[in-house]
Order: sequence, then C-alpha cells, then structure tokens
Amino acid sequence: MPTNIGTGEFKPADAGFEARVRDSFNRQPAMHLIGAVLATVKPGLCEVEMPRKPDVTQQHGFVHGGIVGMIADSAAGYAAYSLFPADATVLTVEYKMNLMAPADGDRMLARAQVTRHGRTLTIVAFDVFAEKSGKMLHCATGLATMMCMLGRPDAPRTAAS
Amino acid sequence: MPTNIGTGEFKPADAGFEARVRDSFNRQPAMHLIGAVLATVKPGLCEVEMPRKPDVTQQHGFVHGGIVGMIADSAAGYAAYSLFPADATVLTVEYKMNLMAPADGDRMLARAQVTRHGRTLTIVAFDVFAEKSGKMLHCATGLATMMCMLGRPDAPRTAAS
Amino acid sequence: MPTNIGTGEFKPADAGFEARVRDSFNRQPAMHLIGAVLATVKPGLCEVEMPRKPDVTQQHGFVHGGIVGMIADSAAGYAAYSLFPADATVLTVEYKMNLMAPADGDRMLARAQVTRHGRTLTIVAFDVFAEKSGKMLHCATGLATMMCMLGRPDAPRTAAS
Amino acid sequence: MPTNIGTGEFKPADAGFEARVRDSFNRQPAMHLIGAVLATVKPGLCEVEMPRKPDVTQQHGFVHGGIVGMIADSAAGYAAYSLFPADATVLTVEYKMNLMAPADGDRMLARAQVTRHGRTLTIVAFDVFAEKSGKMLHCATGLATMMCMLGRPDAPRTAAS
Repeated sequence: MPTNIGTGEFKPADAGFEARVRDSFNRQPAMHLIGAVLATVKPGLCEVEMPRKPDVTQQHGFVHGGIVGMIADSAAGYAAYSLFPADATVLTVEYKMNLMAPADGDRMLARAQVTRHGRTLTIVAFDVFAEKSGKMLHCATGLATMMCMLGRPDAPRTAAS
Repeated sequence: MPTNIGTGEFKPADAGFEARVRDSFNRQPAMHLIGAVLATVKPGLCEVEMPRKPDVTQQHGFVHGGIVGMIADSAAGYAAYSLFPADATVLTVEYKMNLMAPADGDRMLARAQVTRHGRTLTIVAFDVFAEKSGKMLHCATGLATMMCMLGRPDAPRTAAS
Repeated sequence: MPTNIGTGEFKPADAGFEARVRDSFNRQPAMHLIGAVLATVKPGLCEVEMPRKPDVTQQHGFVHGGIVGMIADSAAGYAAYSLFPADATVLTVEYKMNLMAPADGDRMLARAQVTRHGRTLTIVAFDVFAEKSGKMLHCATGLATMMCMLGRPDAPRTAAS
Repeated sequence: MPTNIGTGEFKPADAGFEARVRDSFNRQPAMHLIGAVLATVKPGLCEVEMPRKPDVTQQHGFVHGGIVGMIADSAAGYAAYSLFPADATVLTVEYKMNLMAPADGDRMLARAQVTRHGRTLTIVAFDVFAEKSGKMLHCATGLATMMCMLGRPDAPRTAAS
C-alpha cells in the first residue's frame, strides 16, 4: 500500500513521553469536539483515530477535508512532541497535505512518523486513511514542520506554579 | 500589514454564484460544528468567520491550528467555487499553510482569494487573522490548489432528480 | 533509514514507458547544464543522479538547494510520466520540499515514487540523498502534484508533423 | 494583477544589509551557472532576474520548472537574510511552489517579500513572472520558511579568521 511514512527509529529524550503526549492530547477541547482519540504513541510515531459522525462531514457526506487536516496535524505534532525533552512544548510551523480520495469510511486513521528530528525543527510525514468495510483507503498524505519550544512546559501553569 | 492575498478581479461563470456558494456552505455540518459562518462572497474571494469558543481550542487556550486550517481550507474552496460553472463541484487537491502566530483572539477570520483560475485547477492564496481588542493579528498564510469537477453538481441529488 | 517513499506497484499504460521517459529527459537542456542523469526508471518510480561539481554549489560549498529542488522535481515528474499514456505530457502543478540537511556529498540522488495515480492528477513523494564516503545522507523530502495532459505529445512537433 | 506578495515594511537589523546580501549572492556558483542576477534588495524584499537562455530550458523550450524554483528559493532566502543580524546566515527550511503557467518569456523575474519575520523563522511569499514582449506573465507563486542561524557568518572563514 502506498504510504509516505518513514521507518526511522528514535530514542525519546524523556522516558515519560507517552504519558506526556496523552496528557497534552487530552487537554485539547478541539479533539474532543470532533471525537478524535489518541490510538498509538511510540517514539517519533503517533496515530489518531476518529469515528465518522454526521457532524464532521461536508456536503457530500464524507468527512470534511478540514477535519482530515485536523487529525493529521494533531498526529504530526504529537509524533514530534514524543521526542522532545519534558520541559518543552510543540508548535506547528507549517504543513502541506494532499487530499487524494474522499474520506469515505466509518473510521478515520491519521498516522504520523518523524522523518528527521533536529534540535529546533522536526520534520514529520503523515498519512490519513479511511476504513470502510475492513478496507483501508489512503485519503491524504502530507509533510509537517514542527518546532520545539524549550523551557515552555506544555501543561498550563497553575496559580501555584 | 503583511498579507499574501492577490488583488485579481474575476468574472464568475455563473451569475448566481453567491447563492450557490452560500447553499453549499450551509450543507456542511462540520462548519456548523465549529461555529463558522460565511461572511463575504465575491467573485474569486471568500471570507469565513468564527468566534472563539472553548470547544475549538487547544491546550494553551488558543484556537486549535487544525481549526485554523479548517476555515482556511473552506474559504479557499469557496473562493474557487465562486468562479465555477453552476454544474460543477469543487475538490481540494492540496493546501499548504504556515502558522505564524498563536490564534489568540475573540474571533477568527479566514480570507481567501484566487490567484489563478484555470479550467481544471484554480490556485488560491489565503490568510487567517485573529481579532483581539479590535486589532487583527496575522496568524496564518497559505496556498491551496482546487479542482473543478464539471458535471458533478454540488447539491445532493434527490430521488426525484 | 527515514524515507517518505511509498511502496506502491503500478502498471504502466504504455509498455514503451522507459524509452519515452529517457527520451524526454534527454531533451531537457537544463538537466545537461547541471550534469544530472536518469539512473532508474520503473513504473511509478524514477531516480535522478548528479555528481557534485563546483558550479552547482552555494556559498558554503554544498550543492545549492535550488539544484536539489531541480533534480527532485525532475524525478517526480518522470515518476508520474512513466504511468501516462504515450500520447500525453506531464506538467508540475506544485511541489513542496523540506531541506533537512546540507547537501554535502560527492553525488546527489533524487528518488521519486508515485503515491497515487489518478486520471488527471498524480501525487508523488520524493527524497533526495547526498552520498559521501559511501554513506547516504537524507537531505530533502517532499511531495509533488503532477498533471497528465492528454493529447499533447511530449516530443516537439516538427515542421512536417 | 494577481500576486501573493505582502506589503510589509521592515527595519533591517544590520544597516549594511544590501552589501551583505549582494556579497553572499555573488558567492553562489549555481546562480552564475544559470545566469541569475540580483536586481533589487530592500529590507524584507528581494528580486532575482534571469534571461532565458537555451541551456536553462526543458523539452518544450520554456524555462525549466526547477530553474524557476531555483531563482524563487534564492530570492526568498535573500529577502529573509536582508533582515538578519550581520553575524548570521540563512537556511531554507522548506518551500512550496505552484507553477501556474509555462515560463514562456525572454526574462524571468522572481520577487520575494517577507510576510512574517521572527527571531528564528521568517516566512516569505514569492512570485515568479516571465516577461515577453513587455508583458509580465505570472508563472509561479509560493511560500518559503527560512531559518536564521545566529553566530554563523555567511562568508567563508579564511585561514586567518
């Protein structure tokens, strides 16, 4: 199956990366709004899943291309973030996505994998698939540039901090 | 203020373009989900607005970058669609977006304008701004490639059609 | 090694695809100017090689990023073109490329592989490597959208045609 | 005329920016190879020109898309570099370019203008035009992300330095 995902292996800077990624994802109301969940977190790899519900569709009944971009951007950001030090947060510098087929399925899967991890910038390749009747349709492919912001914890600071 | 918006003037192929664009936009449940509305439709130009609500934010309280991409993609698609013949629909081939500043504002505005309109492909430049205390912050800029699908009406066909 | 190359298998529409690709490549003066050669042509896949010579460098002595883009664009275009019917030519609609490391090597290799082949548009993933002392450094990765122009032969028409 | 160029006004960090940009450009053998010259340098803006010569063409006799990308990337890099401190160099992180019309003209002009200037990253919009019989054809439009590398002088260090 065509995919533009890399096969790199990376060592995380922070052993607690998975809990950190899951905690950050869960603090994003926009992910809850569209019903996206974090399926897989490995060093430099992240998968975000989302069931197709009527309220995330466009005028033809497929999942909206913007929603496809949302889960792709999210997966890409967390693939990068998984490799960052604990005391850092992630910013999306830019992304480019080709929508190759209608997002026609009961479930969407965005898979992102780091292509190159640098100190400041991390490049991530991602793909989005629609699952229908057990088959995976390759809907979208893209590349993202993520930035590591050192010394800016991802978690919100409380009054006590 | 920096902007990458073109200044082209275009003649629509269909005099009823505005009603057609507004009708199509309104049939997108995903736009209703995030509270986006179609503010302006002119030949080759489209603006989409969205108030900042808690459920479209990320972990820092700003509007989620994926949501920024959603309204940008939507504005770009309808900027192109405004120039299409009545018997056509629009597909997003691809887009690329740079997120330049946090989407920190009470209201978001995505403005898209056609750079080049071709028979099959139409290139659209877009910008997204966050309005805060009356000031407009330039949050994102990008380019999209849109495809005209002739003979595929955008409206859903009913049993009678 | 990280790569964003797909693994799709494609059947060419034209059995004489390799000769057609090689002929077209050889008619590009710009490829001769920079010393690029067509190394590999398979259905949906193309590799372009180029030795590092002083006249293709930038101010630090590495191969110029624009030259990296030239061989990437060329490989991507011919990866798509290999799948086209004989009576067609290829146009680059757009491409996006991340430069991930300086092009520091004695030889450059651009490898492009089709991710999705459609009737009008074909999406291609590409990577560029620099070979130095037998090691391959992953310098660049990108995505391109190519368009099939049917009924427009790639070869120049002569006065008699 | 459609254009995606910004209209920002920027103050250079280094009063000697123009001499610094021109010196760097002139040290790029690849620009000499294709006959490109630096036409205009202002704070945050750069124009690169190139006459059409047979050796920069593709198989249809137009300027090669990769060459169009080269002058666009170069203009974008120097538009950013014009705003950098004296003790810095510029790296292209990534760029995306739409080729909208064949580069059919006697002279090419790439114009790049900074959209947003940040401490680490600078976003640049660019357009490429072909001049033919006194008319300017808008051939390409794009966006680039440039990185400022502080403490790395652009000029090559000599043995004495």
